[in-house]
Amino acid sequence: MAQPVSLAEVIAALGGDLLGDAEIRIGRIGPLAEADAQTLSFLSNPRYQSQLATSGAACVIVAPAFAETAATRGAAIVTPDPYLYFARLTQWWAARVRPQAAARIHPAAVIDPAAVIGEGVDIGPLAVIEAGARIGDGARIGAHCVVERNASVGAGTRLAPRVTLGFDCRIGERCIVHSGVVIGADGFGFAPDKGTWVKIEQLGAVAIGNDVEIGANTCIDRGALDDTVIEDGVKLDNQIQIGHNVRIGAHTAMAGCSAIAGSTTIGKHCTIGGAAMIIGHLTLADNVHISMGTAITRSIAKPGQYSGVFPFDDNASWEKNAATLRQLHALRERIRALERKA
Amino acid sequence: MAQPVSLAEVIAALGGDLLGDAEIRIGRIGPLAEADAQTLSFLSNPRYQSQLATSGAACVIVAPAFAETAATRGAAIVTPDPYLYFARLTQWWAARVRPQAAARIHPAAVIDPAAVIGEGVDIGPLAVIEAGARIGDGARIGAHCVVERNASVGAGTRLAPRVTLGFDCRIGERCIVHSGVVIGADGFGFAPDKGTWVKIEQLGAVAIGNDVEIGANTCIDRGALDDTVIEDGVKLDNQIQIGHNVRIGAHTAMAGCSAIAGSTTIGKHCTIGGAAMIIGHLTLADNVHISMGTAITRSIAKPGQYSGVFPFDDNASWEKNAATLRQLHALRERIRALERKA
Amino acid sequence: MAQPVSLAEVIAALGGDLLGDAEIRIGRIGPLAEADAQTLSFLSNPRYQSQLATSGAACVIVAPAFAETAATRGAAIVTPDPYLYFARLTQWWAARVRPQAAARIHPAAVIDPAAVIGEGVDIGPLAVIEAGARIGDGARIGAHCVVERNASVGAGTRLAPRVTLGFDCRIGERCIVHSGVVIGADGFGFAPDKGTWVKIEQLGAVAIGNDVEIGANTCIDRGALDDTVIEDGVKLDNQIQIGHNVRIGAHTAMAGCSAIAGSTTIGKHCTIGGAAMIIGHLTLADNVHISMGTAITRSIAKPGQYSGVFPFDDNASWEKNAATLRQLHALRERIRALERKA
Repeated sequence: MAQPVSLAEVIAALGGDLLGDAEIRIGRIGPLAEADAQTLSFLSNPRYQSQLATSGAACVIVAPAFAETAATRGAAIVTPDPYLYFARLTQWWAARVRPQAAARIHPAAVIDPAAVIGEGVDIGPLAVIEAGARIGDGARIGAHCVVERNASVGAGTRLAPRVTLGFDCRIGERCIVHSGVVIGADGFGFAPDKGTWVKIEQLGAVAIGNDVEIGANTCIDRGALDDTVIEDGVKLDNQIQIGHNVRIGAHTAMAGCSAIAGSTTIGKHCTIGGAAMIIGHLTLADNVHISMGTAITRSIAKPGQYSGVFPFDDNASWEKNAATLRQLHALRERIRALERKA
Repeated sequence: MAQPVSLAEVIAALGGDLLGDAEIRIGRIGPLAEADAQTLSFLSNPRYQSQLATSGAACVIVAPAFAETAATRGAAIVTPDPYLYFARLTQWWAARVRPQAAARIHPAAVIDPAAVIGEGVDIGPLAVIEAGARIGDGARIGAHCVVERNASVGAGTRLAPRVTLGFDCRIGERCIVHSGVVIGADGFGFAPDKGTWVKIEQLGAVAIGNDVEIGANTCIDRGALDDTVIEDGVKLDNQIQIGHNVRIGAHTAMAGCSAIAGSTTIGKHCTIGGAAMIIGHLTLADNVHISMGTAITRSIAKPGQYSGVFPFDDNASWEKNAATLRQLHALRERIRALERKA
Repeated sequence: MAQPVSLAEVIAALGGDLLGDAEIRIGRIGPLAEADAQTLSFLSNPRYQSQLATSGAACVIVAPAFAETAATRGAAIVTPDPYLYFARLTQWWAARVRPQAAARIHPAAVIDPAAVIGEGVDIGPLAVIEAGARIGDGARIGAHCVVERNASVGAGTRLAPRVTLGFDCRIGERCIVHSGVVIGADGFGFAPDKGTWVKIEQLGAVAIGNDVEIGANTCIDRGALDDTVIEDGVKLDNQIQIGHNVRIGAHTAMAGCSAIAGSTTIGKHCTIGGAAMIIGHLTLADNVHISMGTAITRSIAKPGQYSGVFPFDDNASWEKNAATLRQLHALRERIRALERKA
């Protein structure tokens, strides 16, 4: 458990109205249901509302509507958006319990003399920085990363261990890139020629904005002619595939295992559910939300939620319905025939 | 081909009742259909039963019911569970043909003096072991692995080359982790704030039990507040995504490309088919079996097999049925109308 | 922008009939819609035909049918297959603008003295080449690659940084393998034993032909008894999972995130759409084409296009249709009842 802090310190750092004793000490952050007398908890999703009155939490972060209930049972921090407060709390907490080591260039890193390294940069052991690469001030490059020739990493950006940033690719400031990410592998392009495939060299690169986060083992391919573009504030989960010349609008979030095929443009402020897949050469408007597991096969011009997964069932029921589904068009014709008769 | 062994040696190591000449020599293990006079084969799936009588295998591992047929055509090893016998045979065979090199700490590994390294540990070239990490007796850490600060690897566990074990994460004894695995990247958590996303720092870690196997390029994210937990004996195939705070019950097996979103609990002894996806905050009971490609969107309290994939068809038939599917609810209303009339 | 070249140089290198001024200089290759007076563009997909007449491209590569329209607006290169010409142009262009550095064995590579290294081989920093491995003439092994014992890499093959080629696995000539690829991890095989899983050691390897390309973070597992086989000219996109003992026929192409379970055989000249999944122990004929997102659950003996994805819709419509889908079999019975009455 981390060194406890008083609620007074929390409030001093993050604001909010405290109901209760400012000297109460907090040793952990935790969910309402498992909270103890050292836990700072929060209520954001109304479905957990019933857990509030009986929670053993030392203090609960709540919206004004729940202030009274929360304070009846112990301390409370009242704030208009408890989930946002909780997010900021985790950042403040992480900075306390995981203090960042001083920046250093590890002697076992392999750095080309023609790379340009900013001030206060941290480079882990066995990282490879090639000629012409530029690493911005305060950036942190993890062990075993490869930053290829002429690639650039913006100020304050952090690459976890084992990230590949391909030649000529750029990533902006304050980004976080997790382990196993591959940025700038070749897009998948071939011309057919008498039964074989002739490679289309991918002459573009990848351009990533500021404040982007990219999850473990996600891939973003370089463009065929122009660049693949990820705009500011985009958040990508793990195991995502972004094809060549895709453009993802600012502040769009994609959940794990989703995939976008080549040359598709996604709007700003979209959300793409886990394992959703979007074919190539489409355009999705701003504020489009795709449900998990859904295959998007046409462009979408109108904001809204779009879905398309087969509803699961016990296997026997599924088998019967799935078999009948193969006759659906014929069933429609039979309904028509009945209607004509009736 | 490996150095041949006699059936007597096989029986001595693995048991079973031998029908036939113990001096017959075996040079390979192979399927019935392609077996030759040096092949030790097995019959476990009854659908291959017809191949038994005519198989040219030197010896066939069979259940008692097939002993006579097997022995009529050559030698046989009779055992109650031929598939289990075969599994143990492959282990014994692998130990013969792939003798493990003596453990050594490669001089090109980068090991922090504040790491704790057990007895008989093998560490490959260019592996990075950070301060506070603990490597149990007899563990093998492959080339290019990164074991971050305060992470721990149990005795006898083997990390293939190029595995990331994040800070504070623990993996138990006798586990096998394949190349490209990322354990302990940040879970995907953000609070919305006026159209942008505020990161929720992931304060938990990952706790993995004993005898777990994790396939290539699979990711297991660290928990937001508490740990993500993988219990003993779980087997994960390649390219799997495990979200933050997921718990997977003991001896559950998941096939390739499946995914579990955050905070979902999977029971013990479950099987999850390839490319199946399970949304967050669900609970699946013990002994639940999910078919490949199925999207699970609600909790499942009852053991059994659950399915939900669109039945494939030739493209023209699919198009007709899929188009009609968009009118399915309306078709039901038309059936109701007909019923009212009739 | 690259150093401009004259159309005369393009024609000299790649052929085609030039209509217009051979001294026009080209600084980039680009799509018709964004082409300027330094751009060499092409028209291959008839849907972009309307962009031809007004394109500002310096020169457009076209089929004979479009020669007149193209030449009316500027220069044109006329060739029977503009897309193939474009592919070859990108290769020629890439060779100009990305000249390959001279081959060298980086001093920070870790090469076992018992490895066999061909002529003109390039080995990047921190690559690991184990004993018995064979690297063919002119091959290029990227930084952080691991080529395990007795593995072999054919002449002219290029491994991007951070590729794992497992022991005993072979890859042919002129292949391209992108970052994060894992070849030869264990296939997923276990025998059940009283509620636990007993590992089946994977005694086979992976055999990959010539002219194969493998996308970032794709995995190809080693076989259980025999090898997993990828034939000549196969093209695999990113994040693909190939199970043990799969065989993929020559010149088949698979898009990103697709997956093939164990022991399935795919024919030659097939295409597998993105995120499509194929269960184990099936056989697909030559010239079978699987649409994106489709789950293949039975063998396919006849060439053709096969599909099976749920058609997406706005969420409300989908919900109604999906709910009704659970009653589809019952609806069919109601139609039958109506037909009997009528």
